[in-house]
Amino acid sequence: MNNIKIGQIELIVKDFLKENNYTNYIILVDEKTKKHCLPKVIGCFDHPKIIQIKSSESQKNLNTCIKIWEAMTHLYLDRNALMINLGGGVIGDMGGFCASTYKRGIDFIQIPTTLLSQVDASVGGKLGIDFQSFKNHIGVFKVPKSVLIDPDFLQTLPLTELRSGFAEVIKHCLILDRAMWNQIKRKDLDQQDWEILIKHSVELKSKVTEEDPTEKGLRKILNFGHTLGHAIETYFLGGKHHLLHGEAIATGMICESYLSFKHGKLSTEELNEIEDFIFSIYGKINLKSEHFDSIIQLTAQDKKNYKNEVRFALLNGIGSCDYDLKVSKKEMYEALEFYAQS
Amino acid sequence: MNNIKIGQIELIVKDFLKENNYTNYIILVDEKTKKHCLPKVIGCFDHPKIIQIKSSESQKNLNTCIKIWEAMTHLYLDRNALMINLGGGVIGDMGGFCASTYKRGIDFIQIPTTLLSQVDASVGGKLGIDFQSFKNHIGVFKVPKSVLIDPDFLQTLPLTELRSGFAEVIKHCLILDRAMWNQIKRKDLDQQDWEILIKHSVELKSKVTEEDPTEKGLRKILNFGHTLGHAIETYFLGGKHHLLHGEAIATGMICESYLSFKHGKLSTEELNEIEDFIFSIYGKINLKSEHFDSIIQLTAQDKKNYKNEVRFALLNGIGSCDYDLKVSKKEMYEALEFYAQS
Repeated sequence: MNNIKIGQIELIVKDFLKENNYTNYIILVDEKTKKHCLPKVIGCFDHPKIIQIKSSESQKNLNTCIKIWEAMTHLYLDRNALMINLGGGVIGDMGGFCASTYKRGIDFIQIPTTLLSQVDASVGGKLGIDFQSFKNHIGVFKVPKSVLIDPDFLQTLPLTELRSGFAEVIKHCLILDRAMWNQIKRKDLDQQDWEILIKHSVELKSKVTEEDPTEKGLRKILNFGHTLGHAIETYFLGGKHHLLHGEAIATGMICESYLSFKHGKLSTEELNEIEDFIFSIYGKINLKSEHFDSIIQLTAQDKKNYKNEVRFALLNGIGSCDYDLKVSKKEMYEALEFYAQS
Repeated sequence: MNNIKIGQIELIVKDFLKENNYTNYIILVDEKTKKHCLPKVIGCFDHPKIIQIKSSESQKNLNTCIKIWEAMTHLYLDRNALMINLGGGVIGDMGGFCASTYKRGIDFIQIPTTLLSQVDASVGGKLGIDFQSFKNHIGVFKVPKSVLIDPDFLQTLPLTELRSGFAEVIKHCLILDRAMWNQIKRKDLDQQDWEILIKHSVELKSKVTEEDPTEKGLRKILNFGHTLGHAIETYFLGGKHHLLHGEAIATGMICESYLSFKHGKLSTEELNEIEDFIFSIYGKINLKSEHFDSIIQLTAQDKKNYKNEVRFALLNGIGSCDYDLKVSKKEMYEALEFYAQS
């Protein structure tokens, strides 16, 4: 995690700029980060230009990219410009993609401002946008020049945002660190120590993604909870029961813990433990059997599929995870049913 | 040039497939390569799917990418699919870009079928599309899994296409190989030995791009003739005096040879030699002084610019080239005037 720094944002930005020199600075913000976060960093950069987009997952598409590319073009940015993505996952994923493709790529740094982007989206170089309702369907792998994380930004966030990001913290514990799982499961959301958890998640995720940057193998464990989770998120996208990413992934983790149990890799006690904790944090979403077929159909576009077979990352006991496991549609149906009937 | 093979296409495709295994094969063609080239290779692949686009530089844009991404999505291609780009520079640049961004990147190979793409576009991993009339404005650097070149495909091409591709052969000689320049300048277009010249260009370009894949330094010499050349090409794009890429670059090379001369880096004799040969192959395009300001303005979006200064690659005698040289608007004006008055 050489390129990731955690600390007071003004200090770590200044340290970065001491060692790097650019012709132009462009800061990508949304209306929220413009108000709450930009004032803390704008003074660090020499004549920065601001590009503003609307904050919402529904903006993470090609039309917004076109607006960003247009703005970059009109600023006559050359290849020695630096893009600063100040915001959550939408800003980071899409801003990083636009920077990586403008004139075949300029440098960019991520300043993640939500828990979700601090513990997950900003680490590992996955960039991209949604395409025709498929999540992150178009994108590239490219590691940012640097990721600068200030836990203080979390104070500007509502509790629902923390809850959403916490799902990835839970995932990192479930797949890689049983001891940390034992710590977090004893506390409610507002009792968690975010500084410690951010550092923990960033370290674990960096280690995995540095070993397998383009997801040929090991990195697939980070998809635990995401195969059904993404399908559930996509299914409810744009509808009136819109889910936050973390809520969908929390639901996916319960379903995929059930699949781990069904594959003989997780005990009943462990399954119950996971289920109880996740329900205590997220409550239960309204998943009905009439949704199941559509949700299962959506997994056919999952990026980890192989020869039209949907492959899962499944727990091998809490704190360990296997990947590339084949799961039938019938089993997926059962897993969704398990959730709905819990 | 480990990933580049030159030979009979069926044989080199089969050799490639012996060493690589994919779940799906998608061949991107246009109406011309579907007719003239696809029959030679289609039998090599297991159940290939065909995606067809229209052949034209004007198709190299986001709208066509959207159609390609849609087709890939509807085929339920997973990340273990292989895309085969069968065609000229438009197919290779855009197909490579679509493959590199679909689900964050699947493997692709280039089978270039025009002289221009065989000696230039397919080598070095520059991928991309035009954006709002700026050439290759959005794209990535990514080296294809393999480039398979069969000089026999050239037999399906009209002479104007050979002439267009020949400009890059001339460029490679001018910037890197005086001896080969001495060979080609004695012959007319229909007397050139394409097999030898393709191998020569591919070797020179590979060497440069392997040393500097993302154009931080040395690779910029490959832009000789392209700073004014691209601006001229863009200026005439879509108009009734539409230029082939090679015609624009040939014009750019005369102008930039003049700039090399003005900077004291090229003798009068060498300038005349270059001018005479290029005019003998390409004739003269109708460049008028009322076009000059707009053409010069277009260089402001050149990818090699630094701090709003336009930087050129200029010859340092025939067979050698320097880069990052600052040229004023006044000098550019003079260079265009030199061409127009020759």
